[in-house]
Amino acid sequence: MFESADLDHVASKARWKSEAPKLRQRLLQAQWALGSKAKSSVLIIVGGVDGAGKGETVHLLNEWMDPRHIKTYAFSEPTDEETLRPDMWRYWRVLPPRGSIGVFYGSWYTAPIVRRVLGHDSDDALESALERIRRHEAMLAAEGVQLVKLWFHLSRDQQKKRLRALEKNPDTRWRVTDEDWRRFKKYDEFRAVSMRALRETSTGHAAWEVVPGMDHRYRSLCAAHLVLDGIERANEHGSPSAGAPASKPKKARRAADAPLKSTALLDDMNLAQKLGKKAYASQLERWQGKVNLASRSPRMRKRGMVVVFEGWDAAGKGSTIRRVTAALDARHYRIYPVAAPSEEERAQPYLWRFWRNVPRRGQIAIFDRSWYGRVLVERVEGFCAEADWMRAYSEINEFEAELADSGFVLAKFWLQISPEEQLRRFRERQETPFKQFKITDEDWRNRDKRAAYSVAVTEMVERCSTEYAPWTLVEAEDKHFARIKVLKTLHARMSGRR
Amino acid sequence: MFESADLDHVASKARWKSEAPKLRQRLLQAQWALGSKAKSSVLIIVGGVDGAGKGETVHLLNEWMDPRHIKTYAFSEPTDEETLRPDMWRYWRVLPPRGSIGVFYGSWYTAPIVRRVLGHDSDDALESALERIRRHEAMLAAEGVQLVKLWFHLSRDQQKKRLRALEKNPDTRWRVTDEDWRRFKKYDEFRAVSMRALRETSTGHAAWEVVPGMDHRYRSLCAAHLVLDGIERANEHGSPSAGAPASKPKKARRAADAPLKSTALLDDMNLAQKLGKKAYASQLERWQGKVNLASRSPRMRKRGMVVVFEGWDAAGKGSTIRRVTAALDARHYRIYPVAAPSEEERAQPYLWRFWRNVPRRGQIAIFDRSWYGRVLVERVEGFCAEADWMRAYSEINEFEAELADSGFVLAKFWLQISPEEQLRRFRERQETPFKQFKITDEDWRNRDKRAAYSVAVTEMVERCSTEYAPWTLVEAEDKHFARIKVLKTLHARMSGRR
Repeated sequence: MFESADLDHVASKARWKSEAPKLRQRLLQAQWALGSKAKSSVLIIVGGVDGAGKGETVHLLNEWMDPRHIKTYAFSEPTDEETLRPDMWRYWRVLPPRGSIGVFYGSWYTAPIVRRVLGHDSDDALESALERIRRHEAMLAAEGVQLVKLWFHLSRDQQKKRLRALEKNPDTRWRVTDEDWRRFKKYDEFRAVSMRALRETSTGHAAWEVVPGMDHRYRSLCAAHLVLDGIERANEHGSPSAGAPASKPKKARRAADAPLKSTALLDDMNLAQKLGKKAYASQLERWQGKVNLASRSPRMRKRGMVVVFEGWDAAGKGSTIRRVTAALDARHYRIYPVAAPSEEERAQPYLWRFWRNVPRRGQIAIFDRSWYGRVLVERVEGFCAEADWMRAYSEINEFEAELADSGFVLAKFWLQISPEEQLRRFRERQETPFKQFKITDEDWRNRDKRAAYSVAVTEMVERCSTEYAPWTLVEAEDKHFARIKVLKTLHARMSGRR
Repeated sequence: MFESADLDHVASKARWKSEAPKLRQRLLQAQWALGSKAKSSVLIIVGGVDGAGKGETVHLLNEWMDPRHIKTYAFSEPTDEETLRPDMWRYWRVLPPRGSIGVFYGSWYTAPIVRRVLGHDSDDALESALERIRRHEAMLAAEGVQLVKLWFHLSRDQQKKRLRALEKNPDTRWRVTDEDWRRFKKYDEFRAVSMRALRETSTGHAAWEVVPGMDHRYRSLCAAHLVLDGIERANEHGSPSAGAPASKPKKARRAADAPLKSTALLDDMNLAQKLGKKAYASQLERWQGKVNLASRSPRMRKRGMVVVFEGWDAAGKGSTIRRVTAALDARHYRIYPVAAPSEEERAQPYLWRFWRNVPRRGQIAIFDRSWYGRVLVERVEGFCAEADWMRAYSEINEFEAELADSGFVLAKFWLQISPEEQLRRFRERQETPFKQFKITDEDWRNRDKRAAYSVAVTEMVERCSTEYAPWTLVEAEDKHFARIKVLKTLHARMSGRR
């Protein structure tokens, strides 16, 4: 969830100067349209880490938008009036009516997360609280409330830096209290619980968006864009009675060229990492041996394993898989190359063809491309509607949770290469007779859509990297390096580690 | 959930002879349309009480329909092949492809219910299992699988009778085992757990339907109608990519004149119950006193209370409410007469205006008509789409659960009078000058729609009678009797009983 936001995102002053006025203008226009149609409302939920700029963003939105039709409610400890009523009462009474925008600074997420972090609530209690929130938000969405859920994030280091910086400045020193530092000590617990809460409540109609909080210009542009997105989506809705909002055909929600949809997660990978021939040979032997041993361990005998390979065309999925299978007993694994679905498969839910190939316990299934096609090729090529790929993230998490709960081990690899290296490999394929079959017109077409795919890959990794099924990004510019990283990761996963 | 099905429903031989052939014909036609469009599939889930005719119904469906496009799968103990895979695998692999019908005799509901009844699982474990099922079914629905969930029910007495009858007949004696009788001893636990499971998994897109299992003709007609309904609904769907099925405008799902939509729950009420003037006077005093005492008890001081009155026009809601409030301290209650929503209210989700009037703890809110308007007048008059009132049942249960969890006590009354008595009261109102304001053209129009309202009321009671907020049906033909029954029930609810 936080993979991207952990990175340092910065927007220059120049960028701010050029983008902010336009954005402001568009926000006002969208807000005006919302009010004049009065068919939907927008509820902006603001949550996240202390010091990540939640308050500043709320100020900004109020400053930028027409104050008559946007109302902010800050929820902290409940008042006497509120404690006498059910917990949800205080949120209900200030729900924005159709045509207007409400900002909840603090929300129904605060208490369940904090109570779990402090140990007041069990995992089960958190689970039911989140489930209740899911149902509540589904109802709101069906009733024509467009939810925009913004989570302001800082990495551990960023939060420390930020608190220190605030303390250093005499003007802002008062904002940092002992309480802030006490809470900072719980950073890891808070992060883990939040991640779970965000994942479990990110649904097709009410997805969380993580806003990197470090740089105030980047954060503001990012949040404003997401709010604009939300208002525009609300403006596309018909009357709520016509059905759940998830059902309407919508414009591509976040265009590949969305100026603030970061792909830094991929772009910042260190693709220069290499392994010399000799080092590779010895490491290959070593790690293949270790993987072989782990695959026959008592632990793995009781479990099944599902391995997913995704990556750019020509990133080396096939050759990497061969190095993996070389380490396995031929009776214990099976490779499933995934191409366009057959007629039989198209007559079923998209997960069906993968479910039917779930291995037995004791077996390993290797998927060369996978169910992630739903949020990659199907999304980018428009083979399914946005509502469909948006709901796929939680459906996929659910599917993988089912596998994990049944004792299956999951490993998922994204093989990353630069566009230059891809071009080089494409050309090589074209020039090498026995490799020509590997390159098609489609590969060239896909290459042209790299920007759109990069956005999709980043979102896939963020939304579907879970404790039980983490994504591993593999620097595959150098094939040797990639293969060893994959083998090492497989060994770790087989041994019960990330 | 089982209020209606507990009653003895019987279809005569003549009725069977006239209806069955037509139904069969329509089923085949609908099945043919399903296959030729091949856009959706239908999954029939068969569950329920032993001896309630599940197997017979499965046979019947197979006999009546085109066997090439309907496939039945009976799930009992998992096979070796299945135990080696995640639990859901065996259901996935036999999912009906688009254009066809699958019957699951036994399903993902069986294990969680049985495990809870036998005490192998905790309430929390049941809760998560049901939640997983909800998500799974939401995904199937979004993918174009139309679910028809049939629960075959027998009351305790009916099941006993049925098992005895099977034992008595030498041809069927073999079907009743010691195991069946052992399970019969757990009837009450089974009923309670099933009721919860059905309620929690009855959603707008995948509602449970309870089939009374006692009479084989009635049961067969009822099940066949529901299956027909499901196939026809599937036939109205477009391609699944166009959005969740819940979103499509649909034909009225179950028309008021649906031949098998029973309203016996209301029709069989004993409206002859009366209370003489003298008995009434003394009982009124007695129960008003008890209600007053209970309302000031330490238990009720800590709690709020929400009382709902619904009923036919002129059933005596107002006068009954006055007898209730006479027993209460004026500082402790407030009456909310509910009419058509105001402009402010129409700009909000339909539950909003009720949420904002949730009382403080220590207070009592009496609603003269309520949020149930969503599934009564709005349903019958077509003010909201079927998808909207179908999802309202679970939204309302959720709302009331929220109240109950916050320590609020709920009581809900339906005041039943016969059409003849209603007519008498209407006429009386017209003829009595000071009562004329109480009767409008609308009352006469509503009266004409009694059949449609009866269906809606029955479904409301069945789907929204919960342990924490049970419906009380009040025989209101005699006002005295009604008032005392209401006071008694309020006293019981205030004292923590049903």
